[in-house]
Amino acid sequence: MTTATETRKSYKVVGTRPIRHDGVDKVTGKALYGADVRLQGMLYGKVLRSPHAHAVIKSIDTSRAESHPDVRAVATAADLAEVSDTLAEVGEDMYTSLKYVRDNVLASDKALYKGHAIAAVAAASPHAAEEALSLIDVSYDVLPAVTDVESAMAPGAPILHDHITTTGFDDEPAVGTNVAARHLFELGDVDEGFARADLVVEREFRTSTVHQGYIEPQNGTAWWTPDGGVTIWCSSQGHFGIRDSVSKILGIPVSRIRVIPMEIGGGFGGKLSAYLEPLAAIMSRKCGAPVTMAMSRSEVLEATGPTCGGLVRMKMGVTNEGRITAAHGYLAFEAGAYPGSSLPGATACMLSPYDIENLLLDGYDVVDNKPKTSAYRAPGAPIGAFAVESVLDEIAGELGIDPVELRLLNAAREGTRRADGVTNARIGMIETAEEVSKHQHYSAPLEGANRGRGFAMGFWRNNTGPSSLVASVQADGTVMLVEGSVDIGGSRTAVSQQMAEVLGIPVEDVKPQVADTDTIGITSNTGGSGVAFKTGIAACEAAADIQRQMVERAAMIWETSPDSVEYRDGALFHISDSELRMTFKELAAQLTDTGGPVAGRANVNPRGVGGSYAASIVDVEVDPETGKVTILRYTAFQDAGTAIHPGYVEGQIQGGSVQGIGWALNEEYYMSGDGRLLNSSFLDYRMPTSLDVPMIDAEVVEVPNPGHPFGVRGVGEASIVPPLAAIANAIHDAVGVRMRTLPISPGALLAAIRGSADGESTRG
Amino acid sequence: MTTATETRKSYKVVGTRPIRHDGVDKVTGKALYGADVRLQGMLYGKVLRSPHAHAVIKSIDTSRAESHPDVRAVATAADLAEVSDTLAEVGEDMYTSLKYVRDNVLASDKALYKGHAIAAVAAASPHAAEEALSLIDVSYDVLPAVTDVESAMAPGAPILHDHITTTGFDDEPAVGTNVAARHLFELGDVDEGFARADLVVEREFRTSTVHQGYIEPQNGTAWWTPDGGVTIWCSSQGHFGIRDSVSKILGIPVSRIRVIPMEIGGGFGGKLSAYLEPLAAIMSRKCGAPVTMAMSRSEVLEATGPTCGGLVRMKMGVTNEGRITAAHGYLAFEAGAYPGSSLPGATACMLSPYDIENLLLDGYDVVDNKPKTSAYRAPGAPIGAFAVESVLDEIAGELGIDPVELRLLNAAREGTRRADGVTNARIGMIETAEEVSKHQHYSAPLEGANRGRGFAMGFWRNNTGPSSLVASVQADGTVMLVEGSVDIGGSRTAVSQQMAEVLGIPVEDVKPQVADTDTIGITSNTGGSGVAFKTGIAACEAAADIQRQMVERAAMIWETSPDSVEYRDGALFHISDSELRMTFKELAAQLTDTGGPVAGRANVNPRGVGGSYAASIVDVEVDPETGKVTILRYTAFQDAGTAIHPGYVEGQIQGGSVQGIGWALNEEYYMSGDGRLLNSSFLDYRMPTSLDVPMIDAEVVEVPNPGHPFGVRGVGEASIVPPLAAIANAIHDAVGVRMRTLPISPGALLAAIRGSADGESTRG
Repeated sequence: MTTATETRKSYKVVGTRPIRHDGVDKVTGKALYGADVRLQGMLYGKVLRSPHAHAVIKSIDTSRAESHPDVRAVATAADLAEVSDTLAEVGEDMYTSLKYVRDNVLASDKALYKGHAIAAVAAASPHAAEEALSLIDVSYDVLPAVTDVESAMAPGAPILHDHITTTGFDDEPAVGTNVAARHLFELGDVDEGFARADLVVEREFRTSTVHQGYIEPQNGTAWWTPDGGVTIWCSSQGHFGIRDSVSKILGIPVSRIRVIPMEIGGGFGGKLSAYLEPLAAIMSRKCGAPVTMAMSRSEVLEATGPTCGGLVRMKMGVTNEGRITAAHGYLAFEAGAYPGSSLPGATACMLSPYDIENLLLDGYDVVDNKPKTSAYRAPGAPIGAFAVESVLDEIAGELGIDPVELRLLNAAREGTRRADGVTNARIGMIETAEEVSKHQHYSAPLEGANRGRGFAMGFWRNNTGPSSLVASVQADGTVMLVEGSVDIGGSRTAVSQQMAEVLGIPVEDVKPQVADTDTIGITSNTGGSGVAFKTGIAACEAAADIQRQMVERAAMIWETSPDSVEYRDGALFHISDSELRMTFKELAAQLTDTGGPVAGRANVNPRGVGGSYAASIVDVEVDPETGKVTILRYTAFQDAGTAIHPGYVEGQIQGGSVQGIGWALNEEYYMSGDGRLLNSSFLDYRMPTSLDVPMIDAEVVEVPNPGHPFGVRGVGEASIVPPLAAIANAIHDAVGVRMRTLPISPGALLAAIRGSADGESTRG
Repeated sequence: MTTATETRKSYKVVGTRPIRHDGVDKVTGKALYGADVRLQGMLYGKVLRSPHAHAVIKSIDTSRAESHPDVRAVATAADLAEVSDTLAEVGEDMYTSLKYVRDNVLASDKALYKGHAIAAVAAASPHAAEEALSLIDVSYDVLPAVTDVESAMAPGAPILHDHITTTGFDDEPAVGTNVAARHLFELGDVDEGFARADLVVEREFRTSTVHQGYIEPQNGTAWWTPDGGVTIWCSSQGHFGIRDSVSKILGIPVSRIRVIPMEIGGGFGGKLSAYLEPLAAIMSRKCGAPVTMAMSRSEVLEATGPTCGGLVRMKMGVTNEGRITAAHGYLAFEAGAYPGSSLPGATACMLSPYDIENLLLDGYDVVDNKPKTSAYRAPGAPIGAFAVESVLDEIAGELGIDPVELRLLNAAREGTRRADGVTNARIGMIETAEEVSKHQHYSAPLEGANRGRGFAMGFWRNNTGPSSLVASVQADGTVMLVEGSVDIGGSRTAVSQQMAEVLGIPVEDVKPQVADTDTIGITSNTGGSGVAFKTGIAACEAAADIQRQMVERAAMIWETSPDSVEYRDGALFHISDSELRMTFKELAAQLTDTGGPVAGRANVNPRGVGGSYAASIVDVEVDPETGKVTILRYTAFQDAGTAIHPGYVEGQIQGGSVQGIGWALNEEYYMSGDGRLLNSSFLDYRMPTSLDVPMIDAEVVEVPNPGHPFGVRGVGEASIVPPLAAIANAIHDAVGVRMRTLPISPGALLAAIRGSADGESTRG
């Protein structure tokens, strides 16, 4: 671990690597996930899914299913609430119509992708439920499907939505288009910038639809009780978000819905949306019994939100000295069946490592007959960075400038206005790039044929949101911490560390818990790498609240004023009487008799989020016979601000890097001509395994974020941004071809090496 | 409902009768009680109990049980923590040695009552567990048993504890006695008082051991996970108390124990102690699987804590004008197997309705070979009042003074020093007595042979303790209220009403929940009628905390200072701009975007408890052929302070009255000579059914308690205090015999009527 530039403050708990609070339960199999929920008299729900990628639903007849002796409830879109066509936020800066949100849960008029939910059944056994699905008669008018962004935008393309809700256009094209939104970022004057350039490079990049690939399939169990309320158990990235979705889709107030968060087996942005929860709730309402549902792996791949494929045309102009004069990006991203791709993340972040005077980013959000896309780790940013960082690599080669040096020449710094219009606070772009050039890997010899080294950078802006936290002091000196942030990557411990640091107690004395929606105040989703930031701030504030009360109690016991009591290093001191001192634990044992228990609470929605810069160095070897790429060595750098738990930060960096490797080399949605996903299993959807990648060396850079008491930035995402371009750049270094379409599968690379049409098109 | 003397403040929610929040779930069978807990791989635990009332345990051999193929764990006292012989609080003013608490869970050296737990087994099925019990070989040295207080105090009695921990004596008699404690209250000079008396009456009273008779048997499920923590699900009157007991008995810190409170099917003081929870926890620790345990009805009656039987000798002196000059009570109460009877409640309350200058109460806590007693609704007070109110009735008759008039002549009032040394704040003794004399029932004609009317009064001091509460405002304007007080009698609603009153919102918009020990701060047991008081105060404080934050938010939105914003009637107003106003609900929808969510919290341990006075008028008819007593009409009066939910107050008054009727007429532990309980089922242990009692008319008197914002006193207990004497007095009025031994069963009454020895002894 590396600390850059600034003298690190001295902490006792922050920066250490305690065992995670949920660790033992998880490794011993005792942790309870959504699919572990078992209730008395529980029914099993299954979903009937469209076999067609695009079809009008003419009728649904559920009568035969309903008369099945083991069936207790059947649901169709007719059971969902009537919703107005208003915009609803479905992710960071991502909006879509509420009707779309509802129709994605159960199609009301059209099936828009193969796997689209049409109806659901709850029965006494999973087998009976499956059997009953075959008794539902759906009449379809099958339409031609379109499953890539360029075809969807082409004249004469099949149109998914008769009246599409669009945003970002001056003249809103409401009919006859698959383009749902335009995102335009403009700074300066690109024409003027390109005119000043000595070298202009313009290239076209394509990425495929890829899936987050979390281990745990979506699930949901609902129990609607006669008082008109429903309790839902599920694994999600935000139970308050699931509650809000169910509220809207079912048309009931949030206060009638209690969502209990179970442990989550990975999300990466894919577990923000409700899929099964509303169906289980409707069917439980109909029959009065609890209903449990869980997806198969095929359902996960076919019917939850992968991230978008995209087309990016990137044009950049530079002076001979390497100063970027202008950048112009055209982006068209697949939203899937309903509007709302990861475009905003791409346009916001792809150019943010750099200080560019003149830039224009013109992005289009395009629907096609694939599952509605979801966020995926730094959503959109890897696609944009793939284009930018590939072009910069080409420019560096063309100008004969060291690739890191080229980035440093143009580096964004404090005060730079970012591509998304935000003015940077203290950031770590330069420090991160400098760590790369100083690193042994960057200058290490790399010998052997068909081997190459690549480098790329990336940025993720991170996010914040409301967060609630309550912490109760126990008589044995421990503190029960209740938060609303779902823990995906160890945040219970990272949040507890921040509370322990403020209180001056061991982190093992803080016992964290993620509470349900009835129990803790509103807390935003676990996304945008925001938990260690926002809930960390909540922990600090709640700890300060506890400190204040402990000081008052000590003052009461010592019969003095709170001004005469100091709280320091987990103990209370009388300022002028050195005999009077108590540890936190000693005072904790006396609270009940001195006025009652002590609890601290915080309800925050903090500003001051700090973006995170990342970089990758990768060494590859290409097998010229097969086109297979082997990752020989990988070093990932990231500015964590302050690493609360360096071990988890390293884990995040490693995980993001591996997902980026999969995205670059292997992963893709392989579609048939009629819009069916042909590789809907983990056997055929090829993700990297531990045998495919070397140990990822994680280098944590620390440039504290001034917007957080300990300097936290958020560390979960930026690491997935550089790998796509870094690997393509390494392959170019190894075999001299520029791969601009992902994945760089053996077949595609072989064709490029052998100078096929595909290979030709990617040459500069 | 009657409002006495004071002009009632005007409330919108307090004093109304909303439907209870947990009502629908309960009447539709959806509410989850302890025995409803089902966990994957759950084992079933059973307890081996002593067949002897008094025996030395020479050895326990569990090897045969352990080799049973379906047995997973066996526990004996050897598995419990070594504990020092320190005093632990086991109830209000009730202390006992921690060794006794532990030995009552599993006997370590002696079995002290029939049914005493000796060992426990956890097996794959309840049947296998039962079978395995018979494979445990215990070798006993059987000793003579003693099962009533007089025999236990007699010279030469079998001694239960070689070294008894005693309290209250100047010379502590540590060996060779069954007397564990002495409680002495003394005011003035009784000899002087009796010398001034014109009439002195001294009588002896006996009550039997009776059980609370809650519907739901004790239960407990524990799951010890490999991280060294245990989660316990159980039905209790205080999950923090269960946590503390398990912590002490097992020798692990409280923070390793999470107790989840399930709904409780009645407690009445009998569900304060841990019985099965520590056993389930130990066995789960041994085998790693969750273990569930539940008692049979016989186990409940034989092995949980009933309330004590007692002997009271009461001597009172009065002037001819009816002024009490002195009172002297001698009390000996059965504690059961271990020290700690309900004596403190009796001595504190029995004389508290009256302003008596000279009094002496001399009480003895005596162990015998019966289950360790527990609290039972106004613990001890009914026994003491039975004596005092019977003697006063006799005095009233003797002097020819109206019984109510006699009480009013001697009534305690604000400033009176009570028998327990507490000086009364504003109390409702006089108002309650005056309501009686004004009531139509008091003067209604009562015709027919063998019919009589009785009257008695009573007092319960009520209790407080620490209480924690958090309330989160939701976007739909509802408030999620999280408290730590177990809800036995509708307190979720009564607490919510207080929060709703302060916030000016409908009580239906408050959604209350009783949270587990990890989730909410330390909260004391639900006992001493304390919840509506202490947790009500917590609700008021948390609501004020919310108000404060809502005012700040409105000020922020209106760009003004909080001083310019007024919170009134559930809405916010700009003081000088009448255009600016928002309802609570409107502002609630804007919280996230104006700084984050809003939650209020309170952690209190309030003073200012107000004692509650009660009175009963009862009409009875005695069947001279059988001795059966029929209750013709019953009117119960009680000072509630302020009735938050009058319907629940009336329900408490009715419930307490019926339990008092059962205690007076039918209920008793019927013991064999060798110390076995002969009526250990609800068929033989005769509690009143709905066919046995008329509708109880409940008259709520309201003399607000100045120690609570709305005037709450606590209403759960005082109603059980008057019935015992009221019924005995009515029987005297009907047939002319004074019954001074309970229960007044048909046989006993017939004997008394027919002038048998028993009858003779009760004549004045």
